[in-house]
Amino acid sequence: MSQVKVSVDAHGNVQFGARIIALPSSISAEAREGLIAAYARPAADYPPITDKAAWKTKIAQFNASFEPIADMMLQMAPATVATTLIDGVTVHVGTPHDLKATHRQRAVLELHGGGLVLLGGKFAQAMAATVAAQCGCVVYSVDYRMPPDHPYPAAIDDTVAVYRHLLAGYRPGNIAIAGGSAGGNLAAAATLKIRDLGLPLPAAVVLKTPEVDLTESGDSFTTNFWLDAVLKCGLPAANALYADGHDLADPYISPLFGDFSQGFPPTFLQAGTRDVFLSNAVRMHRALRRAGVEAELHVWEGMPHGGFGMAPEDEEIPLEINCFLEKHWGRA
Amino acid sequence: MSQVKVSVDAHGNVQFGARIIALPSSISAEAREGLIAAYARPAADYPPITDKAAWKTKIAQFNASFEPIADMMLQMAPATVATTLIDGVTVHVGTPHDLKATHRQRAVLELHGGGLVLLGGKFAQAMAATVAAQCGCVVYSVDYRMPPDHPYPAAIDDTVAVYRHLLAGYRPGNIAIAGGSAGGNLAAAATLKIRDLGLPLPAAVVLKTPEVDLTESGDSFTTNFWLDAVLKCGLPAANALYADGHDLADPYISPLFGDFSQGFPPTFLQAGTRDVFLSNAVRMHRALRRAGVEAELHVWEGMPHGGFGMAPEDEEIPLEINCFLEKHWGRA
Repeated sequence: MSQVKVSVDAHGNVQFGARIIALPSSISAEAREGLIAAYARPAADYPPITDKAAWKTKIAQFNASFEPIADMMLQMAPATVATTLIDGVTVHVGTPHDLKATHRQRAVLELHGGGLVLLGGKFAQAMAATVAAQCGCVVYSVDYRMPPDHPYPAAIDDTVAVYRHLLAGYRPGNIAIAGGSAGGNLAAAATLKIRDLGLPLPAAVVLKTPEVDLTESGDSFTTNFWLDAVLKCGLPAANALYADGHDLADPYISPLFGDFSQGFPPTFLQAGTRDVFLSNAVRMHRALRRAGVEAELHVWEGMPHGGFGMAPEDEEIPLEINCFLEKHWGRA
Repeated sequence: MSQVKVSVDAHGNVQFGARIIALPSSISAEAREGLIAAYARPAADYPPITDKAAWKTKIAQFNASFEPIADMMLQMAPATVATTLIDGVTVHVGTPHDLKATHRQRAVLELHGGGLVLLGGKFAQAMAATVAAQCGCVVYSVDYRMPPDHPYPAAIDDTVAVYRHLLAGYRPGNIAIAGGSAGGNLAAAATLKIRDLGLPLPAAVVLKTPEVDLTESGDSFTTNFWLDAVLKCGLPAANALYADGHDLADPYISPLFGDFSQGFPPTFLQAGTRDVFLSNAVRMHRALRRAGVEAELHVWEGMPHGGFGMAPEDEEIPLEINCFLEKHWGRA
């Protein structure tokens, strides 16, 4: 790297000359293949937030392009999925083929990713099946309402409604709230809302590469710009569409800025070193720890937002989540 | 960042045009000041490894330049330091002014940083005082032998000798082995050696921004090149001087490559997102977890190798370490 031209000015601005950053050699061959494939896909390109029709077209196109992945997830997961309405909210209930008697009293409330505007539907079904197989318990995957027709706070309201319903059938100490990316936003924000409403807290929260800061103020939005093969850069247009004029720094919109000293469940956080949301995960971990909340941080080498795809490293994530959940299931 | 020219080739090489990366806005004002001051210092510049005299001059100069910092650490820490010889090894014993009766049976074996070639002496004394004050127990800070006169395995041998001595006065479950940077290398490598010798394992290991991979194969050696205000880049010359012709990938030289399935104590790992050793910490955490070892990862936003200096974020590190140690002191 010594051939790279670099200087730092008196304000701490690091000025790099042109340079090439190669794939890490410190990850599996499958992870390297996953990065190459992800880098080859273009960065997301969004319409102006005033053009709802253009957004609907964009969203439909993206969701259609993702269907084969969701189909594959549904085929691979040893679980069944049934779709139901809970208080008017569409919920996909995943049940593992091998549901042990001791695990019947447990439930995961799962929130899918997709920048708070994409996916849902078939992908939310796929997440129900995948997480049910991973956790060995019933999973309630919320097909929450989304923009442009249903911006904030529709998704949070849907999540809280489903959680209220679960409280009628499960002890709170046997419920975990989980989500990846935008789902990590909703998992954390809904947990703040649940606490503020005076409802009993779940046993645990699982935040996978979470979009907990819609102001995108973390350092990794800059340092991992385009090093992240999947997300490549931030999502300011989708964030504005979701917030619908509300303050992006509101803790129900950017839960990183919540007051965790008022109580928060034990939390699992995951990210990658090449993840645009690395700072999100790291800062959320610090915020929770400063408030005395039990929280675990797990970071994977060279991993982009959402993982490599089909690499051995990806398979470690659910193992760590189960390890974490085993410590917290059944909390009184 | 959208003005940055970026493209990715078919092999996953990310090609960046010239760009400026500003200080993170997501850290404290004191942290920002710390980064600016650190960026203003030049990167280390080392002699050829064959020129021992030049190394000795370089080391003496660096150590002298660090004396004021060590003096300040000694003044600030509410602890006394006494220097003694243990089996021929110089050890600085730090005792906190406020040594609680319940903490008298505990000992920390501390290994100072400095790239395996620098510091020791006054700085090793300062670490004895600082860590004694932080942990509230007696600290044995090993002034291990270093190159050019004493390359590998002298430092490991010294560490193991002091640990053997501690076993005569303390239960292994009341001993922690800790170190930062090069000290993190020695802490992990000596623990592998202790295990392989059949000695009882310590209660816990603390690895602060650890130099566990002297082959420097991690992604952050590239991605955080010069974003890390303190270390700026790797230390290949010092690593070669230390290894003295031995294989850099030997687990006693690069403990990241150890076999942890044969047993390793619960381990605390710390790094920063702008740390050249971020990959070291992340990969070591994964290696330990894959082997089923209890291990905690703590990463601070925007932090370089060794911390910001005097920022509030730096003060969180010993608090987390104590929190970790409290779980493991007294292990049977």
